[in-house]
Amino acid sequence: MPTVYITAPPSDADEIAERLVEERLAACVNRLSTTSTYRWEGEIHHDDEIVLLAKTTDDAYDNLVDRLEEIHPYDVPCIERFDESHVLESFAEWRAESVE
Amino acid sequence: MPTVYITAPPSDADEIAERLVEERLAACVNRLSTTSTYRWEGEIHHDDEIVLLAKTTDDAYDNLVDRLEEIHPYDVPCIERFDESHVLESFAEWRAESVE
Amino acid sequence: MPTVYITAPPSDADEIAERLVEERLAACVNRLSTTSTYRWEGEIHHDDEIVLLAKTTDDAYDNLVDRLEEIHPYDVPCIERFDESHVLESFAEWRAESVE
Repeated sequence: MPTVYITAPPSDADEIAERLVEERLAACVNRLSTTSTYRWEGEIHHDDEIVLLAKTTDDAYDNLVDRLEEIHPYDVPCIERFDESHVLESFAEWRAESVE
Repeated sequence: MPTVYITAPPSDADEIAERLVEERLAACVNRLSTTSTYRWEGEIHHDDEIVLLAKTTDDAYDNLVDRLEEIHPYDVPCIERFDESHVLESFAEWRAESVE
Repeated sequence: MPTVYITAPPSDADEIAERLVEERLAACVNRLSTTSTYRWEGEIHHDDEIVLLAKTTDDAYDNLVDRLEEIHPYDVPCIERFDESHVLESFAEWRAESVE
């Protein structure tokens, strides 16, 4: 099953998490505070951001990415998929039921 | 080698991390503060939780999951396995020695 | 594309992130506060650390690891590679351009 790694500005992260769960694109979203260092147009920047880890399903993944591209404030958002090689069965069932 | 992604309530996270290392089921556990948004019995909830990232070995993985199911306070805990595609050799050796 | 998972002491984490981006070994580094529980020389320790998640490319991965081994203060640093199974195309292009 996929975990989707997204970064977002602190002002938008709660709303993104809420929408993904509300619209049944993710069963759960964990939000973690981060400081990001990156290169943008030749300059190095440091920003406070939120890492969102969205727990979803194979079937819902493409729709989740499409929706993120609509609601995310960045032109080039960090959206990455990591596949779990095992998930506790009862948790996998709950995820599948929550995303339908 | 597997990294196990677990979420737990703040009141239980320290004890879970301690047990996994004490019982040689993980070499190291990193704990990170998170806010979780999820759907449970039709309602959307927001909870402060801890993400635990337990560094273990292929051989110890099944025992770690069995033990987590015994000590974790949730009926349906988030327990997920992510496999690293490379680990620094000296760190991999330390992990294997710490989990025996 | 690889995400590299590194832990470092709080006093060194900013400098490590800055160097990796400055030297074009990573496009972006996310830093997250963590508390680590681990076994070292028979004793269980608890330390405040930083998790660094460095976003890089297949081609730059080996150089990033070599450089980390030079600048990291630990003898046995946690350096682990996780491969994404999908990355938003515009973000993947930005990563590739930032690491060259």
